Parts: sequence; C-alpha cells; structure tokens
Amino acid sequence: MIATAPTKEDISQAHQLISPYIHRTPVLTSQFLNDLTGSELFFKCENFQKIGAFKARGGLNAILSLTEKERSNGVATHSSGNHAQAIAFAAAMVGIKAYIVMPDNSPQVKIKAVEGYGAQITFCKNTPEERESTVQKIIAETGAFFVHPFNNYEVITGQATAAKELIEDVSSHLDVIIAPVGGGGLLSGTSLTAFYFSPQTKVYAGEPEGAADAVLSFRSDKIERAPYVNTIADGLLTYLGDKTFPIIKEHVEDILTVSDDEIIQAMKYLWERMKIVVEPSGAVSLAAIIKNKAVFEGKKVGIIISGGNVDLGKLPF
Amino acid sequence: MIATAPTKEDISQAHQLISPYIHRTPVLTSQFLNDLTGSELFFKCENFQKIGAFKARGGLNAILSLTEKERSNGVATHSSGNHAQAIAFAAAMVGIKAYIVMPDNSPQVKIKAVEGYGAQITFCKNTPEERESTVQKIIAETGAFFVHPFNNYEVITGQATAAKELIEDVSSHLDVIIAPVGGGGLLSGTSLTAFYFSPQTKVYAGEPEGAADAVLSFRSDKIERAPYVNTIADGLLTYLGDKTFPIIKEHVEDILTVSDDEIIQAMKYLWERMKIVVEPSGAVSLAAIIKNKAVFEGKKVGIIISGGNVDLGKLPF
Repeated sequence: MIATAPTKEDISQAHQLISPYIHRTPVLTSQFLNDLTGSELFFKCENFQKIGAFKARGGLNAILSLTEKERSNGVATHSSGNHAQAIAFAAAMVGIKAYIVMPDNSPQVKIKAVEGYGAQITFCKNTPEERESTVQKIIAETGAFFVHPFNNYEVITGQATAAKELIEDVSSHLDVIIAPVGGGGLLSGTSLTAFYFSPQTKVYAGEPEGAADAVLSFRSDKIERAPYVNTIADGLLTYLGDKTFPIIKEHVEDILTVSDDEIIQAMKYLWERMKIVVEPSGAVSLAAIIKNKAVFEGKKVGIIISGGNVDLGKLPF
Repeated sequence: MIATAPTKEDISQAHQLISPYIHRTPVLTSQFLNDLTGSELFFKCENFQKIGAFKARGGLNAILSLTEKERSNGVATHSSGNHAQAIAFAAAMVGIKAYIVMPDNSPQVKIKAVEGYGAQITFCKNTPEERESTVQKIIAETGAFFVHPFNNYEVITGQATAAKELIEDVSSHLDVIIAPVGGGGLLSGTSLTAFYFSPQTKVYAGEPEGAADAVLSFRSDKIERAPYVNTIADGLLTYLGDKTFPIIKEHVEDILTVSDDEIIQAMKYLWERMKIVVEPSGAVSLAAIIKNKAVFEGKKVGIIISGGNVDLGKLPF
C-alpha cells in the first residue's frame, strides 16, 4: 500500500500493472473545436476505456495491489456509477466478491453494467453521509475491503496513468492539461503525472457550478462542501478528500466553474462534431475552455474526456 | 483520370495524396461485442473522419486529381448528405465553387454542414432520377465538373484507403472485412484494397432490406433496382453503378441484408457500449454480423464504421 503521495515510480509501476487489462484509448482532435476555442485541443478519450470511464484504471490498480488476505472477503465501495463499475469489473476479473453502494438516482445504464459484472448492489439516498454509512454497515457485516472511490493512493495512482498516456501520445509539448473534478482522484493523479513527466505543463480543472466544493476548497485552503448540489454532471457530486486535496492544492493551477447549460452545450459539440458519446461530467473540461477562452487561447491543451456512461433515453438535447 | 478499375498503385498514390488532409481514424475494439458475436472485431472509425464519414476520402481524391481546367467552373454533385459534405469540404479547401443537389428529406445536421462549407445547395425529391436530372441541369447552366458520389474511379480509389489503413493498423491478419453498400463506392474500394494488400481477406457487405438492390444485382449478375426503398439507413438508398458493380461482383464474397430493427439494435450497441456516435448506415455491417453469427464466428473481422452524421434530436431509441 502506498503510504504517502504517489511518486513517479508508483505511477510508472501502476501503468505497467494495469496496461494488460485496459484500453490505450485514442487521442482525437477536432478542427471545428480548435477554431471555436482558438486552442489546439487533444482529447484523451477515456469514454472508450473499459467500463466506459477512466475509473477502470484506479479500480484495477487498487484491487491488483491488494494482498491475498486483504481481498479474501471481497471488496466494497460506494459510487454514483463509474467507480462502482470499475470495482465490479476489477473484482470479477480477479474472482472476488464486490459489494457496491449506489445512490438510488444513478443512471440505469450504470446500474445495469454493475449488475452485469455480478456485483451485489445496495441502494441509498444520494448524499455523501448516506453513502458512507451504508458502505460501513456492509463492511461490518462482510469483512470486505473498502476501496474508496477517490481518497485512496492506489486509486489516485491508477487515474494518473490516463494523463501519462496522453503526454506520451501527443508528439508536441502540451501547455495545459484539463480534467474534471469531483472527489479529485482523476485531478490529483493528473496533476502528479504532469509534475513528474511534463513539468512545464500546467493543470487546470473544470467543475460544475452546482457542485462547487473544489473551487471553494482551493481558495480557502481547507476542504469545503459545495454551497448547493444540483447539476447534470452526476459523476462530480462528491467533495475532496484529505489525500486528494493536498495534491490538488500543490499542483493544480486553477479550478474553473461552469453552468449546466454550458456543460450541455459542450456535450452537444462532442457528440455532434466529434461523434463521441460523452457523459455530462466528461464535457465539463471543454465547457471550461469555451467559457475561459483567454486562458487557453494559442495553447496546446490536453483534455481528459472522463467517461461516456449516459442513458440514451434521457439526453438533455 | 483513372480509365479502368483502380490498381494497387492508384490506391497507394491516392492515400499519399489525401493523407495530409484527413484523419488517420482509430481502430477500436469491444470485449462486449466480441463476446456477443463470437468474433474478434476491429472497428475502423470513419465516423471520426473529416466531415464525419469516409466520403471525405473519395471527395478529396476526386477534386485533388482534377486539372486546373476541369476545376475552373467548380464542381457539382448529388448526395443524401455525406458525399455532399465531402465535396463541399474538398472544394472549400481547394478554393473552388461547389454545387450540391440534396434530397429534401436529408438530415438537418448534414444540410447545415454543407452550408457551413459555403456550398450552394439545390433541394430535390429523393429519387435517383430526380437527383440525376437536377444535377444535370445545374451542370448545363454553370459548366461545373460533375463528381459522381460513387460511380467514379477517383472516388472509389479514395474510399479504398480506409481499408488500407485498417489492414495496416491491425497487427494480426484479418479474415474478413465488412462494409455497408449503397452505390458501392466504399464496398468496391474496400474489396480492391483487400485483393491487393491482403489477398487472404474476404470482403462482405451489409445492406438494408429496405434498399436491397445490391444483393439482387449480385445474384442476378446485372444492375438491379431495389424492390422497394424504405429504410432508416439514409446513406444507402442508391443503386450500384457500372464502375462499382463489376468490381463488387469480382471481389466481394457475399452481401447480407438486415432489417431496420436489426440496424437500430446494432446502432444502440455502438452508442451504448462503444460510446461512438454512428449513423444508421454505419451500423449495418455490425447488424449483419450479429444476424449471421455462423459466418463470422471465430474470425478476425474488420468493420468499416462508415459515418456518424445523425440528427441528435431524431434518434430511433
């Protein structure tokens, strides 16, 4: 188990460990979106990743890093969906039980996928407190090993590998990488990767106005809750953890907030112009670039498209 | 101008000519669809191509191959959408006028894109006869050079380059490549590429039951019309031409028909499981594989996903 913030070597080892089981997702470009933003954009398509999101990386790294003893009673977690799928997928691969706590308003497509991997689902109300208490009850009953969706160094290290591939696969130097922020697993991992593997690259985050805890925490220098939680970006509702926050505070340049309307517009561009299915959370970074044109203009920008798990029957356009 | 069926050298030259202006689209895989079909599938994502479809290849090759004199009064064509966009795009790039005849029931997203490239659109009823007569009238008035959407060796040669990249980018040997068939530009090009660059690879086609001219022609050994035309696959409504048909007859293994329900189900798999936006015509090949499992089982199969231009407001699911 990694005891302090992941090192460069931790990230390289995690990448080797999980590479046989994940897709090396492509990096796509769009002349239309370059023209619209005045930037040169490189989209790392983690919506094409196993289970439809980057979370396969962290889930796999966490479970593959467990000892025989730690994994003997299975694993448990709570998640609005993509981490749930990641743990269910990784547990099925290793052949252990997975107990998943999901909010009762999770998208059907995510619930069905978790069921498909044979995991045992328990539903709860969609508040951080309910999710925590439900999973603690299950762990007490089963002895399952808890894999936190983001506040876990193995998970952070796994998520860090997406940006590592992005940096390796874009031939020119990236001025900026931008990722969405919920609990901060992807963002902290991304910022560590940039720091170690491409130190000139600045890391930004996009965050929904309707779950704006990270930007508050970033400004006040302590972990804050969002003033209100109401956004279409269902993957970004949680707040930062004591492992993700210090990394983000140290290595992230800024956190930019966007409205749901701006997220939906960005999502529509990704679907209509780039022909990729992206969930609202995955469109937040592009929305932040479109909204803050001056910050990114003339720069080479890597964008992590975090996931593509969305109910086709409930599209916002 | 290429006077007889394109040679291996023609295809290699076309690929060099157009490569600077097109995307080398990625080849994606899906464990779910491998399990569903019992085959190992390699999806060549031409929905990510410039203008959202493989037709950018043929349009570019045709226009870049014109002499100064031939292109002096601009170019004209008729198309249900993707070839229209391809010609508009290629003409704008070269800086010449484009006159496009489009059926009045073309998807809005395709019409808007053609307008976006600055082409002049004339609408007509969606029958092959109306399309032909309208474009002939425009050519008589303007002196524009006619670029047929498929019955043109430069267009066929351009479309052939998609399969060339697919063969180059899949490290293992493909047993089969399958492409959809409308007028046969993509299919004839694909079958020539397989013949020249991977002669062990058999080429199949998928065709909608509601536009089943190619399968009839293939069986009767002469160009036939479809018994009726009524399908969601709006890119495949035309019949074969005297340049595409002989190539298809010689180099294609079989043509497999699918219903609209089967097309919609395949399309849903591509969107939901692979997270890619594919138009109905682009899902016809996968539908044919799912329907004819025994033909493809145990084989390595390349699938050309032809395009992704679809009205998001009018999805069939």
